[in-house]
Amino acid sequence: MDKTEVRVPFDKLKEIVRSILVSVGLSAPDAEIAADVLVTTDARGVSSHGVYALPGYVRQMREGGIDPRADIAVLEESGATCLIDGKNGMGQVVSVKATRKAIELARKYGTSVVCVRNSSHFGAGAYYAMMCAKENQIGIAISNATPVLAAPGGCGPAVGNNPIAVAVPTADDPVVLDIALSIVAVGKMMNIVKSGGTIPDNWITDEEGRPSTDPYVLDRGGAALPFGGYKGFGIAVITEILAAVLPGAGVTKELRDWLLYPHLPTRTGHFFAAIDVSRFMPVQAFKERVSLFGKEIRGGKRAAGVERLYMPGDMENEAERKSMLSGVAVPIHLWKALKELAEEEGLSLDMEL
Amino acid sequence: MDKTEVRVPFDKLKEIVRSILVSVGLSAPDAEIAADVLVTTDARGVSSHGVYALPGYVRQMREGGIDPRADIAVLEESGATCLIDGKNGMGQVVSVKATRKAIELARKYGTSVVCVRNSSHFGAGAYYAMMCAKENQIGIAISNATPVLAAPGGCGPAVGNNPIAVAVPTADDPVVLDIALSIVAVGKMMNIVKSGGTIPDNWITDEEGRPSTDPYVLDRGGAALPFGGYKGFGIAVITEILAAVLPGAGVTKELRDWLLYPHLPTRTGHFFAAIDVSRFMPVQAFKERVSLFGKEIRGGKRAAGVERLYMPGDMENEAERKSMLSGVAVPIHLWKALKELAEEEGLSLDMEL
Repeated sequence: MDKTEVRVPFDKLKEIVRSILVSVGLSAPDAEIAADVLVTTDARGVSSHGVYALPGYVRQMREGGIDPRADIAVLEESGATCLIDGKNGMGQVVSVKATRKAIELARKYGTSVVCVRNSSHFGAGAYYAMMCAKENQIGIAISNATPVLAAPGGCGPAVGNNPIAVAVPTADDPVVLDIALSIVAVGKMMNIVKSGGTIPDNWITDEEGRPSTDPYVLDRGGAALPFGGYKGFGIAVITEILAAVLPGAGVTKELRDWLLYPHLPTRTGHFFAAIDVSRFMPVQAFKERVSLFGKEIRGGKRAAGVERLYMPGDMENEAERKSMLSGVAVPIHLWKALKELAEEEGLSLDMEL
Repeated sequence: MDKTEVRVPFDKLKEIVRSILVSVGLSAPDAEIAADVLVTTDARGVSSHGVYALPGYVRQMREGGIDPRADIAVLEESGATCLIDGKNGMGQVVSVKATRKAIELARKYGTSVVCVRNSSHFGAGAYYAMMCAKENQIGIAISNATPVLAAPGGCGPAVGNNPIAVAVPTADDPVVLDIALSIVAVGKMMNIVKSGGTIPDNWITDEEGRPSTDPYVLDRGGAALPFGGYKGFGIAVITEILAAVLPGAGVTKELRDWLLYPHLPTRTGHFFAAIDVSRFMPVQAFKERVSLFGKEIRGGKRAAGVERLYMPGDMENEAERKSMLSGVAVPIHLWKALKELAEEEGLSLDMEL
């Protein structure tokens, strides 16, 4: 039987990603940052937002949409706030640097907000929020994205399927929420249909705002629906204001799709916030209290047939532990794509397993 | 035909509420604060969270659950953060004072977080968030509440139907999102069933975690479901951490239901945050950009049969304008309850219309 995935040791996969990024122009420290974000995301089982996107990012760097040598600039810094110009740099590098600033400001002032303009696709927000959690801070990371969600009653994309991540330190694993705002991820819908399944008619609407079960309407003016109807749409509106209007980034249609226009800067915006737990209670007491809350949730009574109850992040925290022991799962097609990238760049990497 | 509601001029209704609150023990300035929160909420059409709750609050004050003379105390203030002890005061009074502190700190540091313990039911969070918007800040208000939402796959209440409000200043009306996390408000479900309707089987589960169409299962160990499944549940977990664990308030089952135990302090917690827009861009430019975003959403193409598209807060902003012109709608049964309260307190108020 053909294997559908390979397991690659974390450090080995990271070295491959790092080498490719250096080869397409990133400085060694920036490539180290981006490789850690991407491979950690795969290690956590979020394969839709990690190394999978590397070929797309490389294309953006080759064609001009991302400037691999971008040197981010602080445009304004005032008290506990900071506005950063990402200079069309790689989203992961810009976001890690912006989060470092958020952590520094929250350490000084107790809380902070760092907004970013002129960034790119930032991948999985969980990584940045978790950077804060490691420093005993509650971290929040939001990005805007090209419009794909319909307004309730509207036709076509009105606002992005903007990701929101929050991480909280605990006495054991961090609580990590990382969600976007559609009922189901568009990629997941596509996979269901490609593998012969059907999707219900309340996940997307066509270009006239009618219910549809064909995810390809999204290429013809259709839109995905936000979870929770007007509630999820309201959250989408607020995230667009925080991550796009406030930093002066591209708003809704001003944003350029990084997959469709690899030669153009995307004008993506981000919002990062951090809260220093120690300003409110002793860190250890807080961590134990959150862990106790987690035990209460996980230990709750289960409905018939339900094996486990989860806190946000449980699955990803477990996946990460497994990946550190047994290697990071990489789909065969992605492994081949990495080999091709290495070859195109003339790199002789150790890619034997 | 019997009228189902009366229209009472804003100032008149506020004076009635204020007088009753003074009579049950609030200081004149605190009664002024609370009356404005309650009546403004009704003026905005949110009749489930305004004056409607006054008889319950009065009962709490008479029986000991709320201390009408509570003098809130700052337990910690450090940089842009502050921890407040509400001393079991009335939630509206505590929340307005906490929000004033959040505004003051955000003016000084650019952003702020104020956490509150030992408060009570705070009513509609929109009021506090809008206080920030009036000062050219983005305001966030979150409260915890007694458990009513099930964890995905779980049985019975695991976490509160915690309200989240966000308000954003614009060049016209503020954007105001004010939502709780159940698919539909429990009160609304009850009203549907009481008036002979039925509810779908995916809004609540019974004590065994099975789908139910009987909202009364909520009195027998059932639970409401969060919107968006695990996504909404994740948001509920984060709000409980921010509004209850971080301030050291009662967490989940530690909280006491204000309607069931009017003689006991509820141990409710709140989280308030503010962001000073001017730290990121000129206020007027920001406001115009948000207004433009609103125009874009409202002016989007509509599905067949849809009359209007809305930004969060549009309906409430319009209701408030109408109420200021034509009076605040008060249901007849509530108007009678107010008359009874006034009588019980021996007040001779002008309640002719």
